[in-house]
Amino acid sequence: MEFSAIQIAQLLEGEIEGDGTATVHTLAKIEEGVPGSLSFLANPQYTPHIYETQASIVIVNKSFEPEADINSTLIRVDDAYRAFAQLLDLYNQMKHDKQGIDNTAVISESASIGSDSYIGALVSIGDNCKIGANAKIYPGCIIGDNVTIGDNCLLHSGAIIYTDCVLGNHITLHSGVVIGGDGFGFAPNSANSYDKVAQIGNVIIEDHVEIGANTTIDRATLGSTIIRKGAKIDNLIQIAHNVEIGENTVIAAQTGIAGSTKIGKNCMIGGQVGIVGHLSIGDNVKIAAQSGVQNNIKDGDIVQGSPAFNVREYKKSYVYFRKLTKMAEDIEDLKKQVAESKK
Amino acid sequence: MEFSAIQIAQLLEGEIEGDGTATVHTLAKIEEGVPGSLSFLANPQYTPHIYETQASIVIVNKSFEPEADINSTLIRVDDAYRAFAQLLDLYNQMKHDKQGIDNTAVISESASIGSDSYIGALVSIGDNCKIGANAKIYPGCIIGDNVTIGDNCLLHSGAIIYTDCVLGNHITLHSGVVIGGDGFGFAPNSANSYDKVAQIGNVIIEDHVEIGANTTIDRATLGSTIIRKGAKIDNLIQIAHNVEIGENTVIAAQTGIAGSTKIGKNCMIGGQVGIVGHLSIGDNVKIAAQSGVQNNIKDGDIVQGSPAFNVREYKKSYVYFRKLTKMAEDIEDLKKQVAESKK
Amino acid sequence: MEFSAIQIAQLLEGEIEGDGTATVHTLAKIEEGVPGSLSFLANPQYTPHIYETQASIVIVNKSFEPEADINSTLIRVDDAYRAFAQLLDLYNQMKHDKQGIDNTAVISESASIGSDSYIGALVSIGDNCKIGANAKIYPGCIIGDNVTIGDNCLLHSGAIIYTDCVLGNHITLHSGVVIGGDGFGFAPNSANSYDKVAQIGNVIIEDHVEIGANTTIDRATLGSTIIRKGAKIDNLIQIAHNVEIGENTVIAAQTGIAGSTKIGKNCMIGGQVGIVGHLSIGDNVKIAAQSGVQNNIKDGDIVQGSPAFNVREYKKSYVYFRKLTKMAEDIEDLKKQVAESKK
Repeated sequence: MEFSAIQIAQLLEGEIEGDGTATVHTLAKIEEGVPGSLSFLANPQYTPHIYETQASIVIVNKSFEPEADINSTLIRVDDAYRAFAQLLDLYNQMKHDKQGIDNTAVISESASIGSDSYIGALVSIGDNCKIGANAKIYPGCIIGDNVTIGDNCLLHSGAIIYTDCVLGNHITLHSGVVIGGDGFGFAPNSANSYDKVAQIGNVIIEDHVEIGANTTIDRATLGSTIIRKGAKIDNLIQIAHNVEIGENTVIAAQTGIAGSTKIGKNCMIGGQVGIVGHLSIGDNVKIAAQSGVQNNIKDGDIVQGSPAFNVREYKKSYVYFRKLTKMAEDIEDLKKQVAESKK
Repeated sequence: MEFSAIQIAQLLEGEIEGDGTATVHTLAKIEEGVPGSLSFLANPQYTPHIYETQASIVIVNKSFEPEADINSTLIRVDDAYRAFAQLLDLYNQMKHDKQGIDNTAVISESASIGSDSYIGALVSIGDNCKIGANAKIYPGCIIGDNVTIGDNCLLHSGAIIYTDCVLGNHITLHSGVVIGGDGFGFAPNSANSYDKVAQIGNVIIEDHVEIGANTTIDRATLGSTIIRKGAKIDNLIQIAHNVEIGENTVIAAQTGIAGSTKIGKNCMIGGQVGIVGHLSIGDNVKIAAQSGVQNNIKDGDIVQGSPAFNVREYKKSYVYFRKLTKMAEDIEDLKKQVAESKK
Repeated sequence: MEFSAIQIAQLLEGEIEGDGTATVHTLAKIEEGVPGSLSFLANPQYTPHIYETQASIVIVNKSFEPEADINSTLIRVDDAYRAFAQLLDLYNQMKHDKQGIDNTAVISESASIGSDSYIGALVSIGDNCKIGANAKIYPGCIIGDNVTIGDNCLLHSGAIIYTDCVLGNHITLHSGVVIGGDGFGFAPNSANSYDKVAQIGNVIIEDHVEIGANTTIDRATLGSTIIRKGAKIDNLIQIAHNVEIGENTVIAAQTGIAGSTKIGKNCMIGGQVGIVGHLSIGDNVKIAAQSGVQNNIKDGDIVQGSPAFNVREYKKSYVYFRKLTKMAEDIEDLKKQVAESKK
């Protein structure tokens, strides 16, 4: 699809400077702009690129004052970054406009699918599932029995949901996600081996949650593992049984959270963090990447280390960790001097 | 399905106290009990909940002596926790009672499937596979050529097994598990790049092993990567080529074990642990979460840290790591005092 | 298939010593050799095994001089390890000689598939895909729209590629790989929650790259996430949006690389390493396992720790970390002595 500067300016309520008939068919960063692409300039650091970019159209702030000739057609708007993000969104929506049910999808007769939905090739949907309107379920997704999915959900290829799980609205699951696998629960027995503790709870995911590729969220032993509204969860994350993740909490890739831990609202958790089980993490907590959390954390605290403690103290201790050889030499030296002084 | 207190008491050989006609259709924790649910009280810490729970039936120990009125029907047994676990198990078994072969499964003519098995939609089973009795293979599982699977195995949706692998009996694989991918073997060549070392071994998994979602177990270069009887392996774990995991060893999520390392029996390995290749880890070893193991470990040792050493020493060192700023100040102070004393 | 010593000696241009009619049907390590297997002896450490092995044929160096009787037929070659690796390769190639398109594969009419390709059961290939010659795409792979794949690529079961991604030639993807999932990009909004930043770039993978099971490589926000020629990437690795991995760089399992970081050529990155976003890592860099990289790294540097610094300094500091209790005692002791001396 091609769009002209005039069409884009209308959409963004912007003003054209240059050739209004210039057309674009893709989006690009300003430093990578090629003919036929649309770009934007928001961060002043990138200003030099606008005089060299090959992008056919560039969105700029109304306040932008060029200091040399520019080849591209400009579209002036109030907030260039915001306008560009708006276009990214539109572009993305156009990509996910598939509809209809592929005839290789295997859908239980007792399942219901909402209007305007897309069910791709080789999808399996189990008994008694309820899928809302405008669902986009890409090829190869597997949905177990008795699963409920709300409206406007997007499941990328190969996402897997076990039986009995419940998803709200506007949820995105990426490929390879596993929702509702058994919690890791085993009881030692007299034969020095383990008996499985049956895991009969489920997973509940609230509205506007996004979950990254190959992340695993285990079902509760009893009750529910819960991901609250607006939480954003990256790739390859492990969330164990009976965990609860608070509203709008963001978790970076490869973090693991052990069983029954509750995490508050608006937290930011770095990558490769480990959090042990049965803890209570407050609201607005920040945890630095690779930390190991072994104790409860109060609202608003920032921690680092394994085991994790106050981030400033950690950073100070680490400064001296790097100087430990010198410190050890100083101690030896002091010992000699003190011994000497006694002679 | 609904069950009455009388039916459940018969099953558990328990004694009813209260309304024997009370019925339940689900299980719940005592603090989350709702009408129609069955719960249990084992841990005295939870005793206060029994006077408030809405659960219709609660299983209690024979020795339990109420100190106030209870609304629920009680069933008294010798061991309330054990009795409840028994019910969980039954509930779970009822969930996995599917049978028959879905007509969208693609099964090689040279494969054999045991009696009473369930093969779900969109499963692929390769040439010369031998699948035992009572197998439950959920939708979307992919089994390569020449794979042997014993009796009573449960493969959740989307589990993948490469060619030539061998599974025993009573094994559970969760979704997204990859058994038998190539080991990571490359030999540097004269062109400053790498030649692949072909990986022609397999993976052998013994009886009663459970493997969590999205865990990867690589095939051996030659010979076999082996998971011994009763081992329990959590989600997102990496087990490299030619590794051997001993009987009843338990490994928590996101741990990685590099090539050719042998791990003994009855070990407990925490989450996010890394173990380098070609090591020998003894029996009954415990490794704390996030540790990095670089040396062999003797039977019964407990280690922590990266690199890992004795857990008590690690914890002591970490206490002083947290005090390093103070220690550095003390050293500077001592230096001044000693210098002063020399004047 | 069975091969005689004469056939194998011809293939390897080696000399037979013993029974030329001896036949083998499998390969084995010398210490695990069974009748009917072929093995090799290259490392002198393993020499004692040659006098006891049950392998029917053993490949040895021309220079090898036995010191006792050997039961196996020997084939003498210039380089026994190399000759054996050659046989491993042949064996492996024979395993991946499948051809033809399974009738349960779902292939868009607008997609093109090169000659001599194998498309397994239950594969889905989207609109406008271009797949090169001699592709081997195993059951259950899902390829989105507009994906380009070069010649001689091998996709193991259940590999997933999102729309618009581009793969070169001679690439191997293992099971559960997710190529092109959305980058983890969210912008905080005034409602204390997050707006998704659409991710409309792609992933480009150059020739001779191998990617391990369940690894995830996110698409760029704009532009491309790029894996350069010859890079080898292990299992369960996270590569975020707009990352670039240099030629022939090797990355071990469970490492994570955050957004927009560029990594040079011929680097070796250990397992469970974390690298933060927007960094520049030079060529020939080595990063020890479990390190956390927070700063740019110059060509050829070797680092360890979290945060990572010079590997030798790290190791020295860690020696003293282990002795911290003793150091703290020394400081207390010095304090006492100095106080005493002032009296």
